[in-house]
Amino acid sequence: MTLNPALDLTYTVDALVPHATHRVGHVAERAGGKGLNVAGVLHALGEPVLATGLLGGATGAAVEARTRPPHRFTAIGGETRRTVTVLDGVDATGLWEPGPVVTGEEWAAFRAHYADLVKDAAVVVLSGSLPQGLPADAYAQLVRLAQRYRCRSVLDTSGEALRLGAAAGPDVVKPNADELRALGPDVPKPGAGGLHALDPTDTAVVESHGPRGLIARTPQGSWRAAPPEVVTGNPTGAGDACAAALARGLRDGTPWPRLLADAVALAAAAVAAPVAGEIDINHYRATRERVHVQPHG
Amino acid sequence: MTLNPALDLTYTVDALVPHATHRVGHVAERAGGKGLNVAGVLHALGEPVLATGLLGGATGAAVEARTRPPHRFTAIGGETRRTVTVLDGVDATGLWEPGPVVTGEEWAAFRAHYADLVKDAAVVVLSGSLPQGLPADAYAQLVRLAQRYRCRSVLDTSGEALRLGAAAGPDVVKPNADELRALGPDVPKPGAGGLHALDPTDTAVVESHGPRGLIARTPQGSWRAAPPEVVTGNPTGAGDACAAALARGLRDGTPWPRLLADAVALAAAAVAAPVAGEIDINHYRATRERVHVQPHG
Repeated sequence: MTLNPALDLTYTVDALVPHATHRVGHVAERAGGKGLNVAGVLHALGEPVLATGLLGGATGAAVEARTRPPHRFTAIGGETRRTVTVLDGVDATGLWEPGPVVTGEEWAAFRAHYADLVKDAAVVVLSGSLPQGLPADAYAQLVRLAQRYRCRSVLDTSGEALRLGAAAGPDVVKPNADELRALGPDVPKPGAGGLHALDPTDTAVVESHGPRGLIARTPQGSWRAAPPEVVTGNPTGAGDACAAALARGLRDGTPWPRLLADAVALAAAAVAAPVAGEIDINHYRATRERVHVQPHG
Repeated sequence: MTLNPALDLTYTVDALVPHATHRVGHVAERAGGKGLNVAGVLHALGEPVLATGLLGGATGAAVEARTRPPHRFTAIGGETRRTVTVLDGVDATGLWEPGPVVTGEEWAAFRAHYADLVKDAAVVVLSGSLPQGLPADAYAQLVRLAQRYRCRSVLDTSGEALRLGAAAGPDVVKPNADELRALGPDVPKPGAGGLHALDPTDTAVVESHGPRGLIARTPQGSWRAAPPEVVTGNPTGAGDACAAALARGLRDGTPWPRLLADAVALAAAAVAAPVAGEIDINHYRATRERVHVQPHG
């Protein structure tokens, strides 16, 4: 589920020079947004998945046309945002449009649509930033709706949306270490404390440490999972591949050590894939039995 | 007529820093392309005008939706290009997508459509760069088609497309001084020579000198036209406002001195308007009687 998707444009130029005009050599265009990446990974793995969220305008139509997994979005009056990433020989420069302002009526329409979907779903993944106009507790509302229909939930966001959403008690929160630190006074000690206001008997905290793997504190115990080797590549979408693995494992009741190994391997397979939001399936198969998982804390 | 229109995006950021990520403060989106600007100016002046050209894909649909004057475009399979202009406190940084490759069949379809339109038109303005896939003499072909149907033509392009197009003998060519210089061995002496291969008894050369005005060499004589004062503002679209005035004057048989005064005043009114491609109509009215026109050469 992606409340704030984007049309991701990637431009290749020789060198980005401020205040000059550049002829773009190559343009790549894809449906962006963390939840769309999660759905894309599950779809590539052959899992039944439905992508949803908010889309509007011509840019929203372009995102929908480029969304490969099955999807049912809610239409909004505003225009879905674009992101422009300019690649030169050195690194990436990002330009992020502010995106639409969602009205109260649109948010109510989405919640009704979402309630219909979670009735029939085993797990929902709630990913990414909130568009303008939504209440800060939007994810908390969606977590509670999922609970009402006995649908499990994975929350992957940051800042106030994470703090308020986590307080509603999703099954898993998947912050990265930076996102946890950004919570300020609510920062838990990574791998030792917990998200403030979380009931540790209910919610698992799976904390991402980038290329060094995951630390999970769960009602069943705590583990550290690390990849067998460092993978070089494109880290965009690695966290979303990890969230996809968590969702699948929750649905299947996979024991945590095996689930965490799977999540680390899928994240590494996303880094190894050249295109953001995709996975290298052979890399995944070759890695998942070799992830180091050990009790922690 | 615009063979290579664009969706022009303007992003406002605090400062453009290569290899950083920027949250865009404001996004403006407009139909871009020199011919669309010409049509927009004539439409704003209340003149009957029809915009045409090639459009494709979702970006083409967005351009069409933002084209205010009446229009009939030819659809192509490729995707119309975007341009991104990033404004920071200092200046503009441009990113121009390469745009679609037009097929031979699409070009043939456009020529048939264009022939239908010029049959009923008094003047056609041929503006801007050629998209990939079109022959270098594309404008020469369109000038000859217009001649066949006794439709007058104004050509505003650059490089090889200008050199070959001018050789077909349009009624007016409107190069700027830089474009003339870029022609290399075919460079005429501004205001004294003429475009190589042009028959000076047929084609008027109206050479733009930016804020300093115009120099025109025509079968009826040569003139220099200068604005009464320097206007500060956005020069984008000033040349297109000038082309619009030339087209209207050709249609009405306006004597050259009055026509050139009108063209200089409309160009100044485009600079005075805050939005590229629009004109400040009050500025135009206040300026057109005060343009200095004098015989030249």
